[in-house]
Amino acid sequence: MSAAADHCVFVLGGARSGKSRHAESLAEASGLERHYVATGRAFDDEMRERIALHRESRGGLWATHEEPVDLVGVLGRIDAPDRVVLVDCLTLWVTNLMLDERDVAAESARLVSVLPTLRARLVLVSNEVGLGIVPENRMAREFRDHAGRLHQMVAAVATEVYFVAAGLPLKMKG
Amino acid sequence: MSAAADHCVFVLGGARSGKSRHAESLAEASGLERHYVATGRAFDDEMRERIALHRESRGGLWATHEEPVDLVGVLGRIDAPDRVVLVDCLTLWVTNLMLDERDVAAESARLVSVLPTLRARLVLVSNEVGLGIVPENRMAREFRDHAGRLHQMVAAVATEVYFVAAGLPLKMKG
Amino acid sequence: MSAAADHCVFVLGGARSGKSRHAESLAEASGLERHYVATGRAFDDEMRERIALHRESRGGLWATHEEPVDLVGVLGRIDAPDRVVLVDCLTLWVTNLMLDERDVAAESARLVSVLPTLRARLVLVSNEVGLGIVPENRMAREFRDHAGRLHQMVAAVATEVYFVAAGLPLKMKG
Repeated sequence: MSAAADHCVFVLGGARSGKSRHAESLAEASGLERHYVATGRAFDDEMRERIALHRESRGGLWATHEEPVDLVGVLGRIDAPDRVVLVDCLTLWVTNLMLDERDVAAESARLVSVLPTLRARLVLVSNEVGLGIVPENRMAREFRDHAGRLHQMVAAVATEVYFVAAGLPLKMKG
Repeated sequence: MSAAADHCVFVLGGARSGKSRHAESLAEASGLERHYVATGRAFDDEMRERIALHRESRGGLWATHEEPVDLVGVLGRIDAPDRVVLVDCLTLWVTNLMLDERDVAAESARLVSVLPTLRARLVLVSNEVGLGIVPENRMAREFRDHAGRLHQMVAAVATEVYFVAAGLPLKMKG
Repeated sequence: MSAAADHCVFVLGGARSGKSRHAESLAEASGLERHYVATGRAFDDEMRERIALHRESRGGLWATHEEPVDLVGVLGRIDAPDRVVLVDCLTLWVTNLMLDERDVAAESARLVSVLPTLRARLVLVSNEVGLGIVPENRMAREFRDHAGRLHQMVAAVATEVYFVAAGLPLKMKG
């Protein structure tokens, strides 16, 4: 069992569940300097539009860092005790690791081991993807497995865990 | 933020989660005159059979209104303070709006603005569809986005929100 | 309404949600002789690997029974008051019934009627599959319907029901 992180909040929810908004309101309520780590890659117009909308909706009160793969690196570089760091989201990071053929299990373990060493307040967002029909292709099943295992590990070290549906947060831990 | 509706219950759940039965039991417990608004279209035998089974299981104690698109219109026409109106379900309504190439965001906003003005007790049922793998086709992703946004808006004005799994209601609000 | 079973725990969760581990920890905490009923069939290398990993992670403290179809039969044969029986999982059983063209509704009703007559402590695991987009093929929709109906019936007779996400159990009943 890993050591618990101080002030590490994990916000899990479905697509368009309001999980990011809940995470942002938690970060805003902290009163700390806000840093946003976007893990999504702008592959196509649809994704670019989503990222631009996200950026716009957060306004100018956030420093934004785009980092699709080296999440541990960026967290180390921007870490400071007077900051809150929101990572949105872990499933996009897992997707990018898989596309780059990285060892997702090893990278997940490395991230989870680093979380308790950070001094910033953390708010980690991720997408629950394991509650539908088993996907037909193997890559999607592997993605689902990687995401689920990472979620369990992050929830184990987090101090608070929320499951968000229809914009309503349900506290699972903390 | 919209005004909260009086007596507006939102019941969210997965397929075969028991959400409709929970909604029906809430409506029955109200003691009011029961009206059922079915938004599903009978496209094929499978859907027709589902609608017929639904109708049969409710028995003769309900007035049934089939309305796939003009939900605001039917709610206005049947509104009365001594009535409970059960809408089953919002995701089928979103599907129909998309198939008819309506502006789903505008129609969703219109519905949510009307809810607090109604005098009937409302029980709105919808299907949570955002907790599986990201669908491969764009239309399904758009549907998921529309449904998720509508759920957040409805939950914001509802007085009670339930998430139903395996027939068991979990109160998220109220 | 069926009679409630004594000591029948139902653990529902998504893929890689930690539901099996939660079920195993409940079984271990009972202090009873542990029996594991695996319903999965080893169709291909991927599935065989999963089953082997499962078996290894449980160690030698469990008696393992592989039974893809005749779940009622095996439960009857191994039933004893000093035992805890973990069934993992009900959705794989439903899959096998469908592949063998059995009457899933009848078999589900038979299982649920037998549960309250057993003297062993029961821990039943199942996969929630109804919270994604409606599957395109009819067989997957039927599977989802069968699974959802079975979950409602099992939850109705269970003494405790948990919904597990990210390794965290949420008590829905009991």
